[in-house]
Amino acid sequence: MIRGLGFRLPLALALLLAPAAPAAAYDVKEIGSYYLGGHMVHVEGLPKQEVQFSTGAPVASYDPNGDVETGQMYVQVVRLTAPLATLPLVFFAGAGFSGSVWESTPDGRPGWQQYFLAHGFDTIVPDAVGRGRSTWSRWPQIYSAAPLFRTAQEGWALFRIGPHYDSNPAKRQAWPGEQFPVQAWDNLVKQFDPRWTTIDGPTQDAYNALVQRECPCILIAHSQGAAFAIAAAVRAPDRVRASVGLEPRFTPDPAKLDTAKLKGIPMLFIWGDNIDKDPAWENRLANPQKFEAAMRAQGNRFDWVSLPERGIHGNSHMLMMDRNSEQIADIVRDWLAQQGFVH
Amino acid sequence: MIRGLGFRLPLALALLLAPAAPAAAYDVKEIGSYYLGGHMVHVEGLPKQEVQFSTGAPVASYDPNGDVETGQMYVQVVRLTAPLATLPLVFFAGAGFSGSVWESTPDGRPGWQQYFLAHGFDTIVPDAVGRGRSTWSRWPQIYSAAPLFRTAQEGWALFRIGPHYDSNPAKRQAWPGEQFPVQAWDNLVKQFDPRWTTIDGPTQDAYNALVQRECPCILIAHSQGAAFAIAAAVRAPDRVRASVGLEPRFTPDPAKLDTAKLKGIPMLFIWGDNIDKDPAWENRLANPQKFEAAMRAQGNRFDWVSLPERGIHGNSHMLMMDRNSEQIADIVRDWLAQQGFVH
Repeated sequence: MIRGLGFRLPLALALLLAPAAPAAAYDVKEIGSYYLGGHMVHVEGLPKQEVQFSTGAPVASYDPNGDVETGQMYVQVVRLTAPLATLPLVFFAGAGFSGSVWESTPDGRPGWQQYFLAHGFDTIVPDAVGRGRSTWSRWPQIYSAAPLFRTAQEGWALFRIGPHYDSNPAKRQAWPGEQFPVQAWDNLVKQFDPRWTTIDGPTQDAYNALVQRECPCILIAHSQGAAFAIAAAVRAPDRVRASVGLEPRFTPDPAKLDTAKLKGIPMLFIWGDNIDKDPAWENRLANPQKFEAAMRAQGNRFDWVSLPERGIHGNSHMLMMDRNSEQIADIVRDWLAQQGFVH
Repeated sequence: MIRGLGFRLPLALALLLAPAAPAAAYDVKEIGSYYLGGHMVHVEGLPKQEVQFSTGAPVASYDPNGDVETGQMYVQVVRLTAPLATLPLVFFAGAGFSGSVWESTPDGRPGWQQYFLAHGFDTIVPDAVGRGRSTWSRWPQIYSAAPLFRTAQEGWALFRIGPHYDSNPAKRQAWPGEQFPVQAWDNLVKQFDPRWTTIDGPTQDAYNALVQRECPCILIAHSQGAAFAIAAAVRAPDRVRASVGLEPRFTPDPAKLDTAKLKGIPMLFIWGDNIDKDPAWENRLANPQKFEAAMRAQGNRFDWVSLPERGIHGNSHMLMMDRNSEQIADIVRDWLAQQGFVH
């Protein structure tokens, strides 16, 4: 069922992926993390087993029955000694990704977390419930269904890397002018976290708790993360001072949302190139456009940035990882400065 | 730097968990992460499904067949502008935990990562393969067996918190003088990551690759992590300059190890209190003691610290999270300074 793929990175490519120059240094007051939300549930009726937990450990009796936690969220915080921004940034990753997408790019450049730290913002980077360091719960006892694993094939198409994926890197085809660092594609695949489709409720609860704890703040959300971010803003509009969506294709239909709650919150949506090449293109922008119209109609500051219309071509769905990721970050930072969030 | 654990804790407990003094600020050159190791495998023969991936998303066809990554490791790095230590610390978490155990304590105090950063050490914090942000692979197609979930009951006994766990916190019993912050127990349970017993091989491979990338260095390993750390040192003795084990109960039998390779590497093992209260006590120290003897016999610098014999009582298995975690960190830092690793 499984066969190994024997490709190795050629030397020339390894050199291409050499680390970029480090960002400017910054003075840090705190690097830490915590877990929030969740609750204990009791598992019972499962058979005991005899198990050797680790190489060298004795065989031990293992009882899977008892109290386990579910619904909790891991949150990593970095606070600067003297931030230049008036509010922290809270990051929401897209479906099937943990907060690691904000830390670095697949080709080894500094990620948006470091960019914004170097520019004076505190950063709050959670892992969504069931992903990354938040850990996950057994099914069918706690989660109701098995997770879905994203393949490299699916990601290549969905993230608009190119028209043809092949297991052999030499045979892959990227879109002309593609901004995603295509040679580092396999490093992105290493980040794919199993997707749970049945835990949106506890995930939203944890994000809401996060906003209660860390905000007033600014939300920076990628893809599916924007649906959670917008719902969190509706829930706590007094705490969310601005919301930025990177290709927020799952923006909820504003007709199903109490959009009046969002009045006064400035918003920025940014879109890359080749969106009509998305295999699920049809109506992908319908909800985001309806949402934009609803926000404008009630007087919100709302900026819709299509990068190709600004002359910036070739961006994939993974804007914060593309070769011009700093240029996109500059757009966000300039916009935040315009809104008065930088001293 | 405690952000209150707060929202569910009664006031009296919230006061007990009042903030510790903030750590000294430090100048950071880089906060980032990368993935290393792993390889692509091809999954085939699984049925396609119709799936709604996210609330609000259209129903889409999902094909689980294709290329996926397995065996990769997430690595978080924090590098200081002007480290005081001559070498970085590489942390190995115990079984069923990700690197988050080093970031903070369950009662919200700074973790060892921040302690050592504040004292001038660069820190390298990986998540073992299959845990945390390293993500995990489906079974039985890739991993050969299902994971084992640790219950609160199992952890309470195994980590030597006390003689009796109860789902009701008020009915739990801790050992007299227990150093683990018992009131924050449920926050530790939130960190429990499913345990895989069949992936020690790829896990060791990834740790070996990490040592190749980040060392010369000093290894700091907790519990099961020490088995991986010692094996990594045997594999690359020129790169490992010191090794610290926090209750390394799964130290391999030195008769099954090429211990001569470790000649010249100074080692420190630290043990807490109540070890005979471990439910799997029998012979728990047999291999560590044989290992110590083998190291001493070949002239290694080897320090075996029993905290109770030093008058430090009540420490649990989770030394780096106990109420006196800074005192334990001081012991490690003093020892590293004695070995000449601090300017």
